[in-house]
Amino acid sequence: LAAKTAHGIAHWRPELCVGQLRLAGCNADLGLPDLKPEEAKAKGAQTMVIGVANAGGVLSPAWIDSLVAALDAGLDLASGLHGRLADIPAVAEAAARHGHLLHDVRHTDQTLPTGKGTPRSGKRLLTVGTDCSVGKKFAALAIERALRARGVDADFRATGQTGILIAGSGIAIDAVGADFIAGAVETLAPSAGKDHWDVIEGQGSLFHPSFAGVSLGLLHGAQADAFVVCHEPTRNRMRGVDVPLPSIEAVVETTIALGRLTNPQIRFVGIAVNTAALDAQAAKDRLQALSDEYGVPAVDPVAGTADAIVEELAAQGLVTLDGT
Amino acid sequence: LAAKTAHGIAHWRPELCVGQLRLAGCNADLGLPDLKPEEAKAKGAQTMVIGVANAGGVLSPAWIDSLVAALDAGLDLASGLHGRLADIPAVAEAAARHGHLLHDVRHTDQTLPTGKGTPRSGKRLLTVGTDCSVGKKFAALAIERALRARGVDADFRATGQTGILIAGSGIAIDAVGADFIAGAVETLAPSAGKDHWDVIEGQGSLFHPSFAGVSLGLLHGAQADAFVVCHEPTRNRMRGVDVPLPSIEAVVETTIALGRLTNPQIRFVGIAVNTAALDAQAAKDRLQALSDEYGVPAVDPVAGTADAIVEELAAQGLVTLDGT
Repeated sequence: LAAKTAHGIAHWRPELCVGQLRLAGCNADLGLPDLKPEEAKAKGAQTMVIGVANAGGVLSPAWIDSLVAALDAGLDLASGLHGRLADIPAVAEAAARHGHLLHDVRHTDQTLPTGKGTPRSGKRLLTVGTDCSVGKKFAALAIERALRARGVDADFRATGQTGILIAGSGIAIDAVGADFIAGAVETLAPSAGKDHWDVIEGQGSLFHPSFAGVSLGLLHGAQADAFVVCHEPTRNRMRGVDVPLPSIEAVVETTIALGRLTNPQIRFVGIAVNTAALDAQAAKDRLQALSDEYGVPAVDPVAGTADAIVEELAAQGLVTLDGT
Repeated sequence: LAAKTAHGIAHWRPELCVGQLRLAGCNADLGLPDLKPEEAKAKGAQTMVIGVANAGGVLSPAWIDSLVAALDAGLDLASGLHGRLADIPAVAEAAARHGHLLHDVRHTDQTLPTGKGTPRSGKRLLTVGTDCSVGKKFAALAIERALRARGVDADFRATGQTGILIAGSGIAIDAVGADFIAGAVETLAPSAGKDHWDVIEGQGSLFHPSFAGVSLGLLHGAQADAFVVCHEPTRNRMRGVDVPLPSIEAVVETTIALGRLTNPQIRFVGIAVNTAALDAQAAKDRLQALSDEYGVPAVDPVAGTADAIVEELAAQGLVTLDGT
């Protein structure tokens, strides 16, 4: 999980990835060739991305030598951490010396408004979660893909550093000033054509004691017409804290209760489960059991597809599909 | 309301205020002498405080001449707006020229942690609201005063610019990065002696579409043992947006439901009503009606005192008062 930024980019943009650089003792493996910066440069790499995502977004001093080595080898750097690359003197000096770029995607220079809650046109789907790091970004990307495959005009809207690196744009909601969470989402997913869908990447969980404020501002700013609950079935404590996971039912009820403030029509349309830790039969049984219990499709959008969620949107009258 | 920063300082720290400076067309009046900066300096003023609080915390270009005039007259400046005084070239130049200080109290240079939700010792009371600007800061200050008057060890904890200017310290929660809302409150009101009370200034409302994320992170970080709902009875739309006010009942239920995540023992202990717009009999009737309806004291903590709320804390077994 600590390498989820790296994993997300490698999964969704494999054509852009030429290799990985791992420090001694690293247990993560993207299945990409291990390359030194100069080898990566020779293979066509332009940028080294810091692939770690930790709570608080802290940049480790142990990484600085590698960052400088990448700049020395001719690469730009990209980071999604809260700290800025340009604030590390050794990194700033090396970048200036070589004329290379430092991309701090978690920071926006945009002046953001406060949220207004005024109803806007277009449709929006938000992925929410029983915890952090349970597949909200992957689910949103899979739903965008499934909507487009059925002829629906849809855009993934990135709200976190990895999503921004995958999509090429977005706003890291967790790094904006607290007053501007909802306003940032209104800016990121503005008024659109009535049949257009923005599929908005969720953050955190309404039940996570560190980050619930971010999740609530995101829900209000999204004015979500539909939401999908994302879940990791082997997790029993919330990430980084000593708090049990909420039930999917609690997440559904609370999301509807709080989401109604800015969209009284908010609807629950599916469950996205990360079944990677289950064997094939257990995964299939789990998805079927959840679907039976909640009356909406339960899918693994990575191992499978999100098409059943698109069908559910159609069944609830939210989209019209070609040929239906 | 737009001058609530000025009003808060004048009300709670009158001994520190020598005058007011009002631009042409200003309808606010603190009842202080209108002074030019040089007159204020002659009367002992050290700092000119920007007394305006607007949504988004924007500094108007129309104020710059007055800010520079204050610096030229020998005063420091203090601001609680989101923008920094030092980022205004004319102001920065004048401050540097005279060697005067620019205090941007909405910004903290502290590195904040993410919230953990780990139970901590000491007691905490949070003021929450049916809207922004309904008296949460005044109620918290009045409750601190009432607790101290009854011999209880209590500290007001400021979470907004005006509170910080009144208390002399605090963290402007609405300006911290969204990921750090709860963590900032854990830092602001840390573990304390078991009978110590932190009285934490609330922000926004769980029902305000612009700022509910701030309010939720604040509730979770506070691990509130007790909360007081603040209300302005003549308000019927939420400030700055086209959304009706929630009922006090809805605020109580939602605060308990969401607050339980970090403090399962959270309790509703009172209602603070700003009755300034009502005549004396109507105010008295309203407070009695609310008290009867909700079964907790309803007080106007400014026109009256918050002592009934302290009595309620004692009745619920949360504090032991001298002589009881």
